[in-house]
Amino acid sequence: MAGTVRTATVMGAGAWGTALAKVLADGGIDVRLWARRPELAEAINATARNEDYLPGIALPPGVRATSDPAAALGGVTTVLLGVPAQQLRTNLEQWVPLLDPDATLVSLAKGIELGTLMRMTQVIQQVSGFDINQIAVLSGPNLASEVAEGQPAATVVACTDSGRAVELQRALNTGYFRPYTNTDVVGAEIGGACKNVIALACGMANGIGLGENTAAAIITRGLAEIMRLGMALGAQPTTLAGLAGVGDLVATCTSRHSRNFSFGRRLGQGMTIEEARKAGEGHVAEGFASCQSVLALASSYGVEMPLTDAVARVCHHGLSVNQAIALLLGRRTKPE
Amino acid sequence: MAGTVRTATVMGAGAWGTALAKVLADGGIDVRLWARRPELAEAINATARNEDYLPGIALPPGVRATSDPAAALGGVTTVLLGVPAQQLRTNLEQWVPLLDPDATLVSLAKGIELGTLMRMTQVIQQVSGFDINQIAVLSGPNLASEVAEGQPAATVVACTDSGRAVELQRALNTGYFRPYTNTDVVGAEIGGACKNVIALACGMANGIGLGENTAAAIITRGLAEIMRLGMALGAQPTTLAGLAGVGDLVATCTSRHSRNFSFGRRLGQGMTIEEARKAGEGHVAEGFASCQSVLALASSYGVEMPLTDAVARVCHHGLSVNQAIALLLGRRTKPE
Repeated sequence: MAGTVRTATVMGAGAWGTALAKVLADGGIDVRLWARRPELAEAINATARNEDYLPGIALPPGVRATSDPAAALGGVTTVLLGVPAQQLRTNLEQWVPLLDPDATLVSLAKGIELGTLMRMTQVIQQVSGFDINQIAVLSGPNLASEVAEGQPAATVVACTDSGRAVELQRALNTGYFRPYTNTDVVGAEIGGACKNVIALACGMANGIGLGENTAAAIITRGLAEIMRLGMALGAQPTTLAGLAGVGDLVATCTSRHSRNFSFGRRLGQGMTIEEARKAGEGHVAEGFASCQSVLALASSYGVEMPLTDAVARVCHHGLSVNQAIALLLGRRTKPE
Repeated sequence: MAGTVRTATVMGAGAWGTALAKVLADGGIDVRLWARRPELAEAINATARNEDYLPGIALPPGVRATSDPAAALGGVTTVLLGVPAQQLRTNLEQWVPLLDPDATLVSLAKGIELGTLMRMTQVIQQVSGFDINQIAVLSGPNLASEVAEGQPAATVVACTDSGRAVELQRALNTGYFRPYTNTDVVGAEIGGACKNVIALACGMANGIGLGENTAAAIITRGLAEIMRLGMALGAQPTTLAGLAGVGDLVATCTSRHSRNFSFGRRLGQGMTIEEARKAGEGHVAEGFASCQSVLALASSYGVEMPLTDAVARVCHHGLSVNQAIALLLGRRTKPE
């Protein structure tokens, strides 16, 4: 039986953590929002806004920020983990002693941990020692700014304990935000971890002047290789055909806001990695690093990912975008 | 064993028929391109262009046009049927006596026949009396103008006879055009028949000011209902997750060239059906009619298609776009 969530904590006051804090509070839940920097927590409480990450958005009174992890986590049994993928382990190690042993931990990060090649729920399980039934993932086509504006969006909440999934679904369900439950945690995670690499490929194709047919083919063949990897890891194909798979992939590959698409586009237009980095205000797209961890994970399961491989060669082994496209087109035709 | 195609006929000199004639001829095949209007056939032969439908594209010498069905079809065993869905039956009835009894008939049309609720290959089988193994379908994310320009594109060629599918694959395979074979004819057809309705829904959401999260959710939930219908009809989910399903759906829903998206957008902006039609130079989008045939087909199999239903209510029963969105969001949350 699913209980009712009255208090929830969001660890991480970036754009997505703050947007979800707003969603929860809009549903009548008391939300503690942890920010690493005390001055950000103070500013959020003083202005009911998080101008650093969600400019222009008024937060409801139910959101209270703190920079004290103990104050954020004490006595709370619904904890959303909103720190970046590669920083999750280090952060969580400090928070474990503060967690309620019955808490549900919800992963918001999308990625594969470099080095260990673990998914985020695996990192959470290893670091916390919690039962897998207590660990959930929230993933879907959710641009934080649009969710914060109250635009209609749908997402997936996955947990092997379906009761906890329903509890989270109810807590997060508002007029504008619709979570769908799933028990396929691997399936809900893998799309989000791989999509940025495919968005890089779409950007590259766009940058060398290719059109909508090519983009659709890249997205579809990208989905096929994500499905192969997911199924090797035990995911259900229906999850990958759903919001956390197809949905997130399509949104990332077609969004004008996608940093990965833009970075790939600059490479396609002929910039070097360094030039593309400078043009992106010093940022390197997430897919630039994750193409390597995704490829290593796929390789360890004997899964072929030709698009991800091509992106990795362009990003890390000096292949030109034109050569990469020629390589992909030159593959022998075969059954779909 | 797959044979080698040396001569092929394309019946229908619209944009897509002409583009595929070019693909075949680029692969070294002699192509007969049938145009309904003698003056169009003459112009194509005189100028090596089809300015009415593919302006600016030079056709290779291997393409010869004719308006005489007997001259087009005599002795040819590879016939691509490129007339619109609702006109296929009437046209094919006249052509049947001219067909080589061993010919492979390839459906290029996307749609469900109004009244009979038949897929295009079913119409072909009924009218021609040919064995189902002789009937194939070509479908994928293929904007005709981009294919004609030689931009990279992928597609699906499906036939229950895998030897014929491979024969067609070889005939159509060029440096820029990549066909993948499949034996799942139903799966290859159903995505193309349903996608325009979902593109109308995406346009409507865009027209009332909703953003990328909503678009991704509509595409994903649209895919889910297309999959439900397809599987009820016997299609494989992998086909629907492929180029003819996801690929074509994504391309149509995100293309700025899509007439269906534009028509839906105008309705979302507050135009009446009549105003949207006028603004579209008198054209009504294909999804405007097909939402009804798709819904009737789904209903006859007991399949729920809430997005298609909402589009049909807006197009034919006076529901406002805002009411339709509220209706869709108001559905009870449930497992994905």
